[in-house]
Amino acid sequence: MDSSQCKNTPLYVGIDGGGTKCCASLYDVNGTLLASAITGPANPLHGLERTLESIVSATSQALANSGLSQYQLSDLVVGAGLAGVNLPSLYAEVEAWEHPFAHFYLTTDLHIACLGAHQQKDGAIVICGTGSCGYALVGQQSHRLGGHGFPYGDKGSGAWIGMEAFKRVLLHFDGVGSAPKLAEALLLHFDVSNDLALVECLAKQPSSEYAKLANLVFDCAEAKDPVAIEIITEGAVYLNQLIEQLSAHSEPQLPVSILGGLARRYQAWLSASAKQRLVPARGEPQLGALLYAQSQHQMFQGMAS
Amino acid sequence: MDSSQCKNTPLYVGIDGGGTKCCASLYDVNGTLLASAITGPANPLHGLERTLESIVSATSQALANSGLSQYQLSDLVVGAGLAGVNLPSLYAEVEAWEHPFAHFYLTTDLHIACLGAHQQKDGAIVICGTGSCGYALVGQQSHRLGGHGFPYGDKGSGAWIGMEAFKRVLLHFDGVGSAPKLAEALLLHFDVSNDLALVECLAKQPSSEYAKLANLVFDCAEAKDPVAIEIITEGAVYLNQLIEQLSAHSEPQLPVSILGGLARRYQAWLSASAKQRLVPARGEPQLGALLYAQSQHQMFQGMAS
Repeated sequence: MDSSQCKNTPLYVGIDGGGTKCCASLYDVNGTLLASAITGPANPLHGLERTLESIVSATSQALANSGLSQYQLSDLVVGAGLAGVNLPSLYAEVEAWEHPFAHFYLTTDLHIACLGAHQQKDGAIVICGTGSCGYALVGQQSHRLGGHGFPYGDKGSGAWIGMEAFKRVLLHFDGVGSAPKLAEALLLHFDVSNDLALVECLAKQPSSEYAKLANLVFDCAEAKDPVAIEIITEGAVYLNQLIEQLSAHSEPQLPVSILGGLARRYQAWLSASAKQRLVPARGEPQLGALLYAQSQHQMFQGMAS
Repeated sequence: MDSSQCKNTPLYVGIDGGGTKCCASLYDVNGTLLASAITGPANPLHGLERTLESIVSATSQALANSGLSQYQLSDLVVGAGLAGVNLPSLYAEVEAWEHPFAHFYLTTDLHIACLGAHQQKDGAIVICGTGSCGYALVGQQSHRLGGHGFPYGDKGSGAWIGMEAFKRVLLHFDGVGSAPKLAEALLLHFDVSNDLALVECLAKQPSSEYAKLANLVFDCAEAKDPVAIEIITEGAVYLNQLIEQLSAHSEPQLPVSILGGLARRYQAWLSASAKQRLVPARGEPQLGALLYAQSQHQMFQGMAS
């Protein structure tokens, strides 16, 4: 696509907004990717203004990256899937935004991830990164599993793995448990020498700080440390349960894709039965946001005409 | 004691300061309790100004309650055991206070609880309320076990029990675990009808809110609910470990007292071996603070003379 693209042809933007970043991808009307950009946090639960700024700046940057200087924000049809907007009050707040785009279609981050992974067909996803969550889409019906948040929910997630390791290490230092390998790994990670210093590093930290320990726990588990194996196995058993339960939402079984920063590392730990239900994700969440924007836009245009 | 008490005789105050309240007890020189008062929070970790205000107001009220109108704050020898001052920086901040008393001797809440429970003799305590912690005093040597804080430490505590119950109830609602009795009890407790409403009640709440669920979990365990039994048993096993380890700090074994809001409810769940090591606390933490103030004051006076 060159800069001679006619302004009569609409351009679409798919946005995936979460607690750490906002990804925007610009597509032509055929769904061909033209350009992308990444900006800051876009979870309205942690700040509405910041979220809207991240959306505008990511879209502006993607448009600038495309070189299509004849287009402005007001020419774009935008679909956005944001974390946090499963809460009706936050959904309403973002919906009330006087956005600078031609159209703005809002849904959840889980919805666009599922649409992207299964190219709008029925399917389910398990996301496992800093948090964890399951989501299935069958026709117009969606089903959510888990994802209640840290530290009480989000079992199997990176933050959960980090917290479980930290708990066991504290018991180890008190002599009421044994986790020498994890204790050594955590001290090394934080470059400290005792349990009280570890507490100072982790007390009152957000889930993202705990999640940074997850790969270290996987490393210990793969090096046959029994305590790390126990943690990762418990996490994998939970993900197996999510996968089996999500896939049972339709007959024949729903295909499930596992996404997120820990998807790859968990593969070897999942049960054979769960693995049989897995399919690779066919597209990114931003593509799901594009598909959502297109379908909503068609419906909207249909109603308007 | 009547108001004819001579001002030449010193009066002592013992203060027990924690996250929810500040207890002050006024004693004569023989350790006879004259009056007490309770005011607001006195954990400098959660606010230094508030802590100092609570100490002054609790002491003033105890003095007023005694009817000894010839005494002023500047006549009192005060000993205070505060939560939080195990952190050297907080200890230094409270020590730097230009207090209104004749003398002010500062130590930790654990130290005075142990001094009070064992009347200054060698001994150990396990505190189990909102948080949990073990502490032993052998001569001038103290040993601390656990008490690293919520949600990663403080195993067996009220907050820990509440969190464990909440986790299991969320899994129950997702169909990846079974905890029907606890689920029913939590919905009833918060007067809500589903898991998302429970999450809204408990998300981002402090440990004290989780601890409010502890008695409900004990109730379920005593009514033979297997999930509640599993939680309480795990907590009791940890307390057994604390008790055994603390008592091993001297030969013959150190006597251990179990204190705090859940001490009574845990009794039936402790092992026979742990129970053999337990003795009832002989005095309140405020008495421990008095004993600390007296011993420090003697030393101080000795140095001054």
